Amino acid sequence: MSVRQQVFNHLYETVERYGYGRYDGPILESAEIYEAKSGQEIADQQLYSLTDRGGRRLALRPEMTPSVARMIAGNAGSLQFPVRWYSHVNCHRYERPQRGRTREHWQLNVDIFGSDNPNCEIEIFELIHDVMNSLGATRDMWLLRVGDRAILNSVLRDVVKVPESAHQQTMALIDRWEKVPTEKLREDAAEFGLDGRMFDLLESTLRSGAEVLPDLPQEVRETSALARVMKSEAKDLFVFDPFIVRGLQYYTSTVFEVFDRSPANNRSLFGGGRYGDLAGLFTTQRIPGIGFGMGDVTLHDFLDTHGLLPEAKTEVDVTVIPVDDDLVPASREVARRLRQARIRTSTTLEPRKLGKELARADRSGARYAVIVGRDEWQRQAVVLRDLEGKAQHEIELTDVVAHLTERLAAPGA
Amino acid sequence: MSVRQQVFNHLYETVERYGYGRYDGPILESAEIYEAKSGQEIADQQLYSLTDRGGRRLALRPEMTPSVARMIAGNAGSLQFPVRWYSHVNCHRYERPQRGRTREHWQLNVDIFGSDNPNCEIEIFELIHDVMNSLGATRDMWLLRVGDRAILNSVLRDVVKVPESAHQQTMALIDRWEKVPTEKLREDAAEFGLDGRMFDLLESTLRSGAEVLPDLPQEVRETSALARVMKSEAKDLFVFDPFIVRGLQYYTSTVFEVFDRSPANNRSLFGGGRYGDLAGLFTTQRIPGIGFGMGDVTLHDFLDTHGLLPEAKTEVDVTVIPVDDDLVPASREVARRLRQARIRTSTTLEPRKLGKELARADRSGARYAVIVGRDEWQRQAVVLRDLEGKAQHEIELTDVVAHLTERLAAPGA
Repeated sequence: MSVRQQVFNHLYETVERYGYGRYDGPILESAEIYEAKSGQEIADQQLYSLTDRGGRRLALRPEMTPSVARMIAGNAGSLQFPVRWYSHVNCHRYERPQRGRTREHWQLNVDIFGSDNPNCEIEIFELIHDVMNSLGATRDMWLLRVGDRAILNSVLRDVVKVPESAHQQTMALIDRWEKVPTEKLREDAAEFGLDGRMFDLLESTLRSGAEVLPDLPQEVRETSALARVMKSEAKDLFVFDPFIVRGLQYYTSTVFEVFDRSPANNRSLFGGGRYGDLAGLFTTQRIPGIGFGMGDVTLHDFLDTHGLLPEAKTEVDVTVIPVDDDLVPASREVARRLRQARIRTSTTLEPRKLGKELARADRSGARYAVIVGRDEWQRQAVVLRDLEGKAQHEIELTDVVAHLTERLAAPGA
Repeated sequence: MSVRQQVFNHLYETVERYGYGRYDGPILESAEIYEAKSGQEIADQQLYSLTDRGGRRLALRPEMTPSVARMIAGNAGSLQFPVRWYSHVNCHRYERPQRGRTREHWQLNVDIFGSDNPNCEIEIFELIHDVMNSLGATRDMWLLRVGDRAILNSVLRDVVKVPESAHQQTMALIDRWEKVPTEKLREDAAEFGLDGRMFDLLESTLRSGAEVLPDLPQEVRETSALARVMKSEAKDLFVFDPFIVRGLQYYTSTVFEVFDRSPANNRSLFGGGRYGDLAGLFTTQRIPGIGFGMGDVTLHDFLDTHGLLPEAKTEVDVTVIPVDDDLVPASREVARRLRQARIRTSTTLEPRKLGKELARADRSGARYAVIVGRDEWQRQAVVLRDLEGKAQHEIELTDVVAHLTERLAAPGA
């Protein structure tokens, strides 16, 4: 929990530094909104669904996008677009648990709603860099790969001349490119009418990366948000990669994925993209936007692979130990003072031998013990013990708080 | 979200100051564990249950206790008892939504596991006082009422002499005492064999509060954790109230409820109690403990009634506004510097007229605008505008961060 919370806090802090407001939503939604929007695989095979006592068909959210689309649509009249929103929620999918996949995961969702402007792309890319920085990840550890479906469509239509009827299947093929041997891809392509010559042309064109841009019609180059971003100072934040497609739902132009560069774990960490119209299911108003969803399971694996997981923090700074039962109220009084100074303090609940209590305090991760002894207490003093260095000395009760505050704030404490 | 998050953070901070470690658990659990432990009403009428694609009967957790019991039992071998744990989780119950009740609510669970010592009671009571303090609630706004089932059992057995067979029904009757007219209670009591004389004796004994204690057998007075707490300095933290029973599950002795004292909202805010053996379903090891669960819906009503809800915070401190499209990269550079200094900064995504952008920045809650103008930028300067006072002045780029850091840290900023 401590490791997880520290990682999560880095995410929140970074996103909030960009002025994103946090939202939340119900874990139960109408099953329909996933059946309508989330794609066949999720709706047919991965949904945890139930019928409630009122006869409604509900599902545990497998993702946050339909919920936020509904919320944005429902508040469109009062929102000042473009809006920056983020959430961090648990999602459920009935998948086969494996490395990087669990049935419940926590997802950070970051979106800008209500703008087509390529400045949104740049902000999201910058933010991703800052998120990765905040986690201690350097640029040699990961890579932001960005594609553009508008560019890809133009490649298919204007360069490779794939028949319109085969566009969808070709996109799905490109999406599988890195996971399937080329010969298998070639066979599959032939099945929906892409012959060997077209297949080779497709592959060489995609492999040429940004070099394909000059061959595309001027209109595509000028309207593509990504093509405009590539002319800005932000071009150094990512590599253009036409193989990035991101399934088939929502996204209409920019699509991106953050890849782990470690050979041990070479795969997509998270991704997102631009949607031309998010909330069509809930409103007639066109609401474009761009965003990403980052899951905690793959992120944890990434941080683990690169040795970036933070150390777990202890739960307590100081333990107050009475040497006898009748000094328990005195130890509570000491603890009260320390807590008022925001020092995390526990007390002994079941007084035993001092040695045992000290060993116990040490194991608990406390840095200091305050021992309440009979003679010391009579002169309004206690014994302060450094549980690491083992040094101890008597100190007046009135000095304990200031003394411990200073020691705990010292570097390395 | 901002209000909710501020309230929640007060809770976490207070509980952590006592050295409680946070845990989390799955929202889906086997339906059985609630059927076994949570009482008839929850299991039969309030559970959101489903059968997953693997044929398992699951339920959305209606409460956290069975989950934490399983976790404690599963780790009993490695835990250093007594342990202090807390969680904050959403729970689902299919109830009729009404004031103070929604189908989803967030519940703070705070428990000490593995100790029978009355010091646990005292710590939990102190912690409740600190939690209420942290929310700004003074003692005239709320009351901690504490009962003891061991004392109540003795009252029924030794004072009123209720037949053993009618104990359960009498307890249930007492639990309903404040919600039902006395005449109705008297009738119900008669039905399970409590005649008018016994009923009157029961009522007058319970109403006498702590005065009943000397009439109880010495053994009860000595073994009751609460009777021992009443002899300590902690007696001022609560009132002893034999009418507090808390349903019938889990609790074996101390039971308590925090009541709102406002006449407009006079009811239980949250409560808890001591269990003699928490994890009997999962282990043969006896694990006693004490704890409470605090829901966010009733808490919100309480804070609202007493004018204690915090003000929502804005999401941004500074907005950077370029006066023209080609100054957008410059405005991003300024924003980058501010964010590095942990200042929450947004930039204009779709540059429009300056007046409109300033109005927009003001509405967003930002305190300052940094205007990036053409001439100023050429001499490496920007215009800083106080969105509240409307004053503005030119400032060198190298001074912006220090200047805004200082202004935002000033009181009232």
